[in-house]
Amino acid sequence: MENPKKIACIGIDLGGTNLRAALVSRSGKILDRRVTRAAELEAESILTELAARCRDLVQSGAARGIETVAAGLGVAGKIDPSNGMVVFSPNLPVLDGYPLGRLLQKTLRLPVYMENDANVFCLGESFAGAAKGFRNWVGIVLGTGTGGCLFLNGKLWEGDRLGFSGEIGHMIVEPGGPPCPCGSNGCLEAFASARALVTGARRALRVPGIKEGPLGELERAGKLSAKTIYECAKHGDPAALELFDKMGWALGLALANLFSALGIRRAVIGGGVGGAWDLFIDSLENTLARNCSMLGPEGALIQRGRLGDDAALIGAARLGMKRKRAGEWVNG
Amino acid sequence: MENPKKIACIGIDLGGTNLRAALVSRSGKILDRRVTRAAELEAESILTELAARCRDLVQSGAARGIETVAAGLGVAGKIDPSNGMVVFSPNLPVLDGYPLGRLLQKTLRLPVYMENDANVFCLGESFAGAAKGFRNWVGIVLGTGTGGCLFLNGKLWEGDRLGFSGEIGHMIVEPGGPPCPCGSNGCLEAFASARALVTGARRALRVPGIKEGPLGELERAGKLSAKTIYECAKHGDPAALELFDKMGWALGLALANLFSALGIRRAVIGGGVGGAWDLFIDSLENTLARNCSMLGPEGALIQRGRLGDDAALIGAARLGMKRKRAGEWVNG
Repeated sequence: MENPKKIACIGIDLGGTNLRAALVSRSGKILDRRVTRAAELEAESILTELAARCRDLVQSGAARGIETVAAGLGVAGKIDPSNGMVVFSPNLPVLDGYPLGRLLQKTLRLPVYMENDANVFCLGESFAGAAKGFRNWVGIVLGTGTGGCLFLNGKLWEGDRLGFSGEIGHMIVEPGGPPCPCGSNGCLEAFASARALVTGARRALRVPGIKEGPLGELERAGKLSAKTIYECAKHGDPAALELFDKMGWALGLALANLFSALGIRRAVIGGGVGGAWDLFIDSLENTLARNCSMLGPEGALIQRGRLGDDAALIGAARLGMKRKRAGEWVNG
Repeated sequence: MENPKKIACIGIDLGGTNLRAALVSRSGKILDRRVTRAAELEAESILTELAARCRDLVQSGAARGIETVAAGLGVAGKIDPSNGMVVFSPNLPVLDGYPLGRLLQKTLRLPVYMENDANVFCLGESFAGAAKGFRNWVGIVLGTGTGGCLFLNGKLWEGDRLGFSGEIGHMIVEPGGPPCPCGSNGCLEAFASARALVTGARRALRVPGIKEGPLGELERAGKLSAKTIYECAKHGDPAALELFDKMGWALGLALANLFSALGIRRAVIGGGVGGAWDLFIDSLENTLARNCSMLGPEGALIQRGRLGDDAALIGAARLGMKRKRAGEWVNG
């Protein structure tokens, strides 16, 4: 039998700061990658940059005898996968209403499939990461905001296709709590995201005594960020530690509610702020045990994402591979 | 073509007070029914009563040329459908650890299938009630406690088969809120159930001024119940109205969280306390709209159950019909 032709897909992760693309093998291995700065670009320039990086990757594959058959594109925010449209992108507002997927498909002459960034994270961790082999699980991506997704019966859950699903970050954990950019109060995202750490630190600074501590110094130096707050906490600052405790509490409560409702017990947590795992996991697990009375002694299984930033790239490529096989094309 | 033989199933609803059984046609019509008091009976007597009522129904069917092919049994609490065992029944504790389904099957020489009472409610409303034709929806049963279930992709969702699923009543809506019999605090059930109305009224009676009002009179007369609190509210008593407002708030918040996470927008609410619909629906809908930022202007669709008490009977019979067709038998 002849060797089957080697094929690959491009996976794209379009974040608020960078545009990352990779050529990914059928088995989920990253063969080559490109990164470009996306912040401050206009929509047309994002398309041009993206198309150029993708062509690079197609050529890089071709030089090794690999055919690129499709691309998958993960974008933060509300998207319409059926027509390749970015409906609402909080991190890249220049893309609001821009048919990025459709235009990229036309430019590249390759099928391009779009999904929410948290969904492509899930697809990646499910295909080649911490959730491999899991049938039912909750994915949470702790970044600037809080992304989420559900895998049910071995598939990414899409709900009623209302344009959103798996919005774990907008489950209310503290009614009347801190405001969330979505307009509600006390969402998980208002406790468990890079943005929540910074706004939480600023709230804490109003308390006498804390203003004079390390968080106050960072704020005065204009250096307050999720990363510097994490470092403060690692050095034992109680005010910073409290923010991660609260993050774990909020995550534990949201997961307790999901596990009670869905009768499941697995979650995978990734994203940049997921790297603060050691600072929030105890609080998360204690809260979960206290608030999910249904789970027996075997309890919940909470794991870290295993692919880091590559989860979204591998997941986006996997999306491309699956949809292409199903013979779907973006309309247009 | 010959007329196909007429067949029917028995549906049984085993509540804390009464044992109700009905002969149900293939199309979900109740053909005949029996009711017996279950409170204060021992486990063996419950089995004997149940078997006698079922035999009545089988004979009643036979007299009309109808063959009874199976029975479905809905029980409040945690059950193990695979071996017909009641694991834990808060309303009929004499049944804890009793293999009621298996013994009934042996006695009747008919396949008997068991499910949680909220799940059979869902099956009933889905087959012949308010949720007919709905693919994805949340069911909530407001009774002594708060039952719940999920229908996903047109099927009763069973999760990881951990012995519970759809425990909407134990989603936390107010962290640190009133205690729930499950051991957690601030569960939906602690706001939206007959028990919550009574304990909520007792809490309210500690407030000066309220003790002297109609709720205080009921308490002193030993007549405080969900029903009398409802009547107080219908007569405009602010303290009683406040309890139903809070019920609606808690239901709205739990549904907002489920809709955000699942990307769905339909719920059906039934059960005895669901009859107080007019007193909680405004608060429910306002809370939902404020706390589910993802749902567009088309919004959520919340409906009342349409089958009343018959939902559980029709659903239990439907369970019997479906499992029998699938060729399953309870082990034993």
